[in-house]
Amino acid sequence: MERSKQRCGARKMSDPGLHKRAQNIIERCRELARISDVPGQTTRLFLSPATRDAHTLLLWWMRNAGLEGRVDDAGNLRGVRLAAGDSAARVVLFSHIDTVPNAGAFDGPLGVVLAIEALEMLAEEPLPFSVEVIAFSEEEGVRFGFPFFGSMAATAQVVPATLERRDQSGVSVAEALYGFGLRPQNIVHSCALAAETFAGLEVHIEQGPVLEAEDLSLGVVEAIVGQSRFELTFTGEANHAGTTPMRLRHDALAAAAQWVVEVERYAANYQQLVATVGQIEVSPGAVNVVPGSVRATLDVRHPKDESRHAAVANLLTKAELAAAARGVRVSAKAISKQAAVAMNRELTVMLQQAAERAGYETHQMFSGAGHDAMILAPHVPATMLFVRSPGGLSHHPDEAVRVDDVEAALATVVEFLRGVKPPDR
Amino acid sequence: MERSKQRCGARKMSDPGLHKRAQNIIERCRELARISDVPGQTTRLFLSPATRDAHTLLLWWMRNAGLEGRVDDAGNLRGVRLAAGDSAARVVLFSHIDTVPNAGAFDGPLGVVLAIEALEMLAEEPLPFSVEVIAFSEEEGVRFGFPFFGSMAATAQVVPATLERRDQSGVSVAEALYGFGLRPQNIVHSCALAAETFAGLEVHIEQGPVLEAEDLSLGVVEAIVGQSRFELTFTGEANHAGTTPMRLRHDALAAAAQWVVEVERYAANYQQLVATVGQIEVSPGAVNVVPGSVRATLDVRHPKDESRHAAVANLLTKAELAAAARGVRVSAKAISKQAAVAMNRELTVMLQQAAERAGYETHQMFSGAGHDAMILAPHVPATMLFVRSPGGLSHHPDEAVRVDDVEAALATVVEFLRGVKPPDR
Repeated sequence: MERSKQRCGARKMSDPGLHKRAQNIIERCRELARISDVPGQTTRLFLSPATRDAHTLLLWWMRNAGLEGRVDDAGNLRGVRLAAGDSAARVVLFSHIDTVPNAGAFDGPLGVVLAIEALEMLAEEPLPFSVEVIAFSEEEGVRFGFPFFGSMAATAQVVPATLERRDQSGVSVAEALYGFGLRPQNIVHSCALAAETFAGLEVHIEQGPVLEAEDLSLGVVEAIVGQSRFELTFTGEANHAGTTPMRLRHDALAAAAQWVVEVERYAANYQQLVATVGQIEVSPGAVNVVPGSVRATLDVRHPKDESRHAAVANLLTKAELAAAARGVRVSAKAISKQAAVAMNRELTVMLQQAAERAGYETHQMFSGAGHDAMILAPHVPATMLFVRSPGGLSHHPDEAVRVDDVEAALATVVEFLRGVKPPDR
Repeated sequence: MERSKQRCGARKMSDPGLHKRAQNIIERCRELARISDVPGQTTRLFLSPATRDAHTLLLWWMRNAGLEGRVDDAGNLRGVRLAAGDSAARVVLFSHIDTVPNAGAFDGPLGVVLAIEALEMLAEEPLPFSVEVIAFSEEEGVRFGFPFFGSMAATAQVVPATLERRDQSGVSVAEALYGFGLRPQNIVHSCALAAETFAGLEVHIEQGPVLEAEDLSLGVVEAIVGQSRFELTFTGEANHAGTTPMRLRHDALAAAAQWVVEVERYAANYQQLVATVGQIEVSPGAVNVVPGSVRATLDVRHPKDESRHAAVANLLTKAELAAAARGVRVSAKAISKQAAVAMNRELTVMLQQAAERAGYETHQMFSGAGHDAMILAPHVPATMLFVRSPGGLSHHPDEAVRVDDVEAALATVVEFLRGVKPPDR
């Protein structure tokens, strides 16, 4: 009963001051969304003219919150508020401000704008550490087909080959950085996180339906799932759909279809697993021809790497069985893989406790998508706070947040900053 | 045992004269295949320059066989040998000489070239009826997206709208006919089959694997199957493949895949039914997005219309069930349908008896593909003789025939002409 009561609507009475700040966060995100490389939609690519305009606006907001701003040589916008005393300890609050094409207003900007608002709210409160807000320059990876450039620069993971990648216009990363007035050769020095950084927190919309299904505003992220992606090719025999009896067919699509159904059933029965066949292409692809070959993709994610590996092995075997039953051959090619990344356990508990102090229940969950927090976590203690996504919608102009949920996130971040302690020297 | 013996290899000793004629038929088909609108492949479209060259060669072969040739106003090449007496009764031997793009040498031409060879062989034998060989001008329907133009013209089924259809260059059927030196306004008069036609026979490659599986040279066709074609659209919800738990998905591809498997299973268990999903397209079609919608085609064929209708109803219901189980909607649109066409029973028996007299066992079968015989059958008694297709291959440069099988077909056609009787007046 108590639990049921907690789960209905707001966890506590709304604080008028916090509520107004939450509204301000939403308005600022919507204002940023108007700054676009493509008129009439929100498309803000890495190092684009719109990104420069977004920087200008964010720098203004940072200054009002008492932050000293700069753009590092990877194009990350960073604002620092120094510690009250002589402590060099530092907390980073971060997310990204690049977008997918025709994006919504909150995927990325919410975490940056909310961090600035939290610091504006705490302007008069001394903290025993510095706080840095980072708006990473490139998380989605649209322009150069390479995500997480900003956070990789902050963790010294940018290699020379990355700077040679080219966009669709043939411009390299290095050239784009120069064009933005930056010096790619200085990335290591100007981008690295301060050595004294002891905590990183990313606030981000969930981009999924879990918090909505749980009827909760906030989720604390325990891990970002690992991913495996494969491309499978089923090779049967193209034949005339009228003249080839069923028993003499080697139908590549029928084999692939059986496998798609088995992928769905297997993942549905396996804790925390998601598995998706998102692409399928049939050749020759004519209404009156038995499919001769099928190309399909597989995307498998799980918070535990061993479970993901077991699932992949199982699903690839199922593909072979579905094919063999029809005299069809199948081959599978790994196209990418990424290990699961755990968030820092102590920091995640602190975040959950901060939410509790602010009066909010949180859902412990996994992130099914990659985030900058995943790039930082192996280098600094890091965690993530998820904000409910109405309808689970993201990467879409209708992407939204609820003001009560933003209020909950703001209150939680403020409590987190009040409660987090630098490590003893 | 007797049956087993009959089925091994040739049914009788090869006749040296017939064997040589069979080789000649294959050589002539291969010669015709070199006459192409596209150098290096066999592509001979309706009313094209290559078709004119093919006519020239065929007319020469017709003349050598004692046939008087002409091109009718639908572009059909026709050669007649008049009856020995004053009988007006007529038999037509027919197939087509247009091809699909990058075709083989035998789909169509075999029936025409074999008919000419049969009449050359019978040149000295008086027959109590006239015989007309027709090389229909357009069966595949490649140029104007409209098959069977030639045989429809011969049965007064060409309507004015058909003459207004345009090819990819914007040329209408009527304009193409004028350009070939023909008069479309005369189609009815110049193309109609002679009223006294009492039997039609088309020899054609099987284009399927059945005769090969039966180890037989020849098939007699009892009916050409009816067809129903549908386009189905499964509409679910596109979602992030990482952040959407399996239980909250509405995966359009999973629904379609379950249905594809059920189409296959249902048809495999239903006598004489073939059902094919030949096209499937996923939207948005990204490796990391749960499919939001799927378009798929269904092609259903059966020699009995009632059975086909029952199968269609069953398969569309299965699509609804597979969709409903996932909160996915499905809609189905009929894109074409065609009733089954029975071959003339007496004529088919005569054909089978002719094969027996020639020393060959035949397989009684259905045609899963459409043929000119299907267009003629409602107007004149007609039947078809199938010749084994090695590997079931057709519409491909590697399409082939075996010389022994062509010999069997030639011997059967000759016996058919010797045995078939005009109706009593």
